[in-house]
Amino acid sequence: MKASASLVGPGWALAKFSVLTFLILVVLNLAMTTEARPRIRHYKWKVDYLYFSPDCVEKVIIAINGQFPGPTIRARVGDTIVVELENGLPTEGVVIHWHGIHQVGTPWYDGTAFVSQCPINPGETFTYKFMLSRPGTYFYHGHFGMQRAAGFYGSLIVDPEHGAKEPFAYDGELSIIINDWWHRSMYDQETGLFAIPFRFVGEPQSLLIEGRGRYNCSLVPSGSVAGSGDCVNCNSSNPQCQPYILPVEPGKTYRLRITSVASLSSLNFILEGHNMTIVKADSYNVDPVVVENLDVYSGETYSVLFTANQDPSKNYWAAVNVRGRKPATPTGLALLNYLPNPSSMLPSTPSPVTPVWNDFDYSLNQSKLIVARKGYEVPPPPKPDRQLIFLTTQNKLNGRMKWAINNITYVPTSTPVLAALKYGLKKAYDSIPPPDIPTHSFSINAPPANPNATVGSGVYTFQFGSVVDVIIQNANTLNPNNSEIHPWHLHGHDFWVLAYGKGIFDPATDPHSYNLKNAPLKNTVPVFPYGWVALRFRADNPGVWPFHCHVEPHFYMGMGVIFAEGWDRLPNLPKSVLGCGLSKHL
Amino acid sequence: MKASASLVGPGWALAKFSVLTFLILVVLNLAMTTEARPRIRHYKWKVDYLYFSPDCVEKVIIAINGQFPGPTIRARVGDTIVVELENGLPTEGVVIHWHGIHQVGTPWYDGTAFVSQCPINPGETFTYKFMLSRPGTYFYHGHFGMQRAAGFYGSLIVDPEHGAKEPFAYDGELSIIINDWWHRSMYDQETGLFAIPFRFVGEPQSLLIEGRGRYNCSLVPSGSVAGSGDCVNCNSSNPQCQPYILPVEPGKTYRLRITSVASLSSLNFILEGHNMTIVKADSYNVDPVVVENLDVYSGETYSVLFTANQDPSKNYWAAVNVRGRKPATPTGLALLNYLPNPSSMLPSTPSPVTPVWNDFDYSLNQSKLIVARKGYEVPPPPKPDRQLIFLTTQNKLNGRMKWAINNITYVPTSTPVLAALKYGLKKAYDSIPPPDIPTHSFSINAPPANPNATVGSGVYTFQFGSVVDVIIQNANTLNPNNSEIHPWHLHGHDFWVLAYGKGIFDPATDPHSYNLKNAPLKNTVPVFPYGWVALRFRADNPGVWPFHCHVEPHFYMGMGVIFAEGWDRLPNLPKSVLGCGLSKHL
Repeated sequence: MKASASLVGPGWALAKFSVLTFLILVVLNLAMTTEARPRIRHYKWKVDYLYFSPDCVEKVIIAINGQFPGPTIRARVGDTIVVELENGLPTEGVVIHWHGIHQVGTPWYDGTAFVSQCPINPGETFTYKFMLSRPGTYFYHGHFGMQRAAGFYGSLIVDPEHGAKEPFAYDGELSIIINDWWHRSMYDQETGLFAIPFRFVGEPQSLLIEGRGRYNCSLVPSGSVAGSGDCVNCNSSNPQCQPYILPVEPGKTYRLRITSVASLSSLNFILEGHNMTIVKADSYNVDPVVVENLDVYSGETYSVLFTANQDPSKNYWAAVNVRGRKPATPTGLALLNYLPNPSSMLPSTPSPVTPVWNDFDYSLNQSKLIVARKGYEVPPPPKPDRQLIFLTTQNKLNGRMKWAINNITYVPTSTPVLAALKYGLKKAYDSIPPPDIPTHSFSINAPPANPNATVGSGVYTFQFGSVVDVIIQNANTLNPNNSEIHPWHLHGHDFWVLAYGKGIFDPATDPHSYNLKNAPLKNTVPVFPYGWVALRFRADNPGVWPFHCHVEPHFYMGMGVIFAEGWDRLPNLPKSVLGCGLSKHL
Repeated sequence: MKASASLVGPGWALAKFSVLTFLILVVLNLAMTTEARPRIRHYKWKVDYLYFSPDCVEKVIIAINGQFPGPTIRARVGDTIVVELENGLPTEGVVIHWHGIHQVGTPWYDGTAFVSQCPINPGETFTYKFMLSRPGTYFYHGHFGMQRAAGFYGSLIVDPEHGAKEPFAYDGELSIIINDWWHRSMYDQETGLFAIPFRFVGEPQSLLIEGRGRYNCSLVPSGSVAGSGDCVNCNSSNPQCQPYILPVEPGKTYRLRITSVASLSSLNFILEGHNMTIVKADSYNVDPVVVENLDVYSGETYSVLFTANQDPSKNYWAAVNVRGRKPATPTGLALLNYLPNPSSMLPSTPSPVTPVWNDFDYSLNQSKLIVARKGYEVPPPPKPDRQLIFLTTQNKLNGRMKWAINNITYVPTSTPVLAALKYGLKKAYDSIPPPDIPTHSFSINAPPANPNATVGSGVYTFQFGSVVDVIIQNANTLNPNNSEIHPWHLHGHDFWVLAYGKGIFDPATDPHSYNLKNAPLKNTVPVFPYGWVALRFRADNPGVWPFHCHVEPHFYMGMGVIFAEGWDRLPNLPKSVLGCGLSKHL
């Protein structure tokens, strides 16, 4: 306005200069708007059922905008993500959890059904809106029933601020989600897990890399069977199940982002003939570790570097195998495609073989290698204000198989816990706080003496800003000589992994072994068979936050708890997250 | 009180008599309370997934209290039904529609998702409460997506007042629900109906009588297929698929209640070797008609009488076959068990054969035989206040196959229409009223010239108490030389069936043929290929009422409209029916 006004004044030359300067500044400013300034990134997504054949066997999946995996969000720190999510499913509600995003100030958009919000009803459009505060590899997925297992997931990648540099160099970038896959529908799996007698989902039929696997169609009866519409259609030439291509130029170094959304399996990733250097775990810089293969637990993300330094006349397998459970699933394969070799040129080498499935020390040792990168340490507070010891057991409840924490098996409420706390809806959840420590003496080396659990929806509430330690104590399942890996994921926070241990955690001595120097920050951590893991976090994010085993059937069978802090500091919740259970009376 | 007070008075003998009388009266009164006075009948139901093998092939169904079909409600006129319905499904909402019950004064308990109420969310308990005002054979079923096809249904039988007599006699009573059955899941069927290219559900694999059918297991590949959990399990010896038994004593006469909840098929019912006398249709007395077999359309109920007058040393088949579509499904069989013959004694006779599937005149003539019983006529009002002509066509919308009324295909809202009208939520539905008559000239003998439909959720609103005629005009589908049967069902009302006609309805002449004398009252009526049916009803039930084809895939594909009247006379809606869409802001 000033520049414009000065045109009619005496200082014409100066004014002319000013106008030019102004215009240049405007142009620069515009450039900066598109490149450097935080942006609001708007997405319109519709969730629908879709016939899809990720492993050449067709089934009904839950897809977003007709895509599987769902659309990748690529954004920058400081950006605001707005997702208008329309639920096109006929009778199912949906939510989307943004795994690893802390939702500071927007806990109602954490996307957990009956915790942060009511499920989005069929036909409704719900808008998620949240800011990205930290760069990294994240993902999103359904967090209602076992909808993640139905294919309802995708990637969310956050680049650092313009000019910010990673402490490692690479020429190109690749990204994959790895997963296990079943032919039985999600509904069938859910039914079996709650059935008497119990029917387990069993080992997966296939392993997927970025949504693509390959099933051995010769195992399926040929032709379609009269009247058996549910009988699998297998078609090996379906483009949906051709191997995912990872194209590389010989000699160059790549950053590969790896996310596991596995429903059940601990997965091991191998790049045939190539070492990998772990540089990030759950989006934090870690001390570089060179590995031949990488264990990835459901809910974890990694960035690894590798150099395309092998014989460039060949292509190589990228492979995923099951570890931690006796494998009954063929290797999942993608193609490391050395350009300009054609992607149709498949390796003649056999599928890479992973370390033996029950070498748990191998896995434990790899997890222990993950520590904060030198110079990037964020030391944990020296002492906790409160210590929780979670004995995790397999239990029975009214004849049904369950998982429980200190003998309480989690059952979802029908009112969002966040709304219940915020508005004092005391009938919406168990007001008796669940126990901080196991309520009975226990052994971890045999099936529980008292396998009966009680049902709970109790909430662990923390003083705002307090420091909480959680020790997850693994134990024997209901079957003799069996204990399983459980990757525990915390919403709304990262935690320091202070120590992994074997046997029973000793509160008197084990804390002395805690790593208070370069403990890694993570949002998901495995607890190994017959062992424990000690975590620390600061309860400084106002909201209500699930903490649960990321194995989909385990959480569905009750393996989780609810944490809450500082909800009294929150403004009124958006109306859009209410409407179910007692929250319809607000 | 008087009797008690007189005890201390002088007339002791009289008092003693009075006390005795009083006590006798009390006892009589109590007896009357349990026998004759209207009762409140309280039910606690939980909806869950269940593995079930209605036709020997296992699939996941939607069951109530672990039963299939759901529990039978047996009550008496004047009783109040209270159903506390807990939704135990993990991610799906549910509602229950009480088919044939008018819900006068309680339109919010009609149980139609997004019309009368929000779906009941997982974990919620919703209470239906309504009075039974008329005796008859009714049923209930899911009315959300295609949940009825998942087995979510059961019987509701209302006895007349104590002392009230039916105008026919019988010695015993039997009741069956007949149905068609698919092995593909409801989700798979829904996905196909909205897929591009369209995938039809196809002909059913089996026909069920009271939840039991039998599939030819030799059509299923033997053994389970590695990794193909969805592949059918077939077990002919499963007790869940043994024929339903209709036990009768030789020489006696039985009332058989027949309800069709078929998803797709027009069904024909035969009692081998026994004639049947139709005495009720949709719970109204009709002029007795003797038939050898009975066409029953989805949504209809009948009572027939038959006498066990055949060779008592044998048992007989009760049989269901498909009519109106080219059959590709084996006969559904139950056992008419002449006592004391063992129920294991199966007839050696072949399955009864039904009239040829496309003898539509046979069906039309049977429907025309249904008229009000002499002495029980309820004459329709002589003239309508408004006439609607509904051209029903198969259409395309954005490449998807649809059904439409006057070229508008119904899409559910995300706010209950009842709440939208009552509280003036104008953004919740299309405020432009849909057309009373076809908007374009049309031919019914060829696929529509303009097959494109538009989407609508418009509402036909009627002046309270006015008389409405609806003519449903059938037409050719998108395939040449094809027109299908559609059983149309109206909620909240019965209608008089004034006439069935062939070809295009002529508003000038056809009304002269209307039956104004003994037109039957029904809530469901078939419209036959290339024909029309004329209905009349009085819009005197405050509420919002779907009127739709009772073929599950057809309504799912948009073959329905919403009627509404007198909603301004209603008190505030119960909070329990709100919470979704714009109704969460109330």
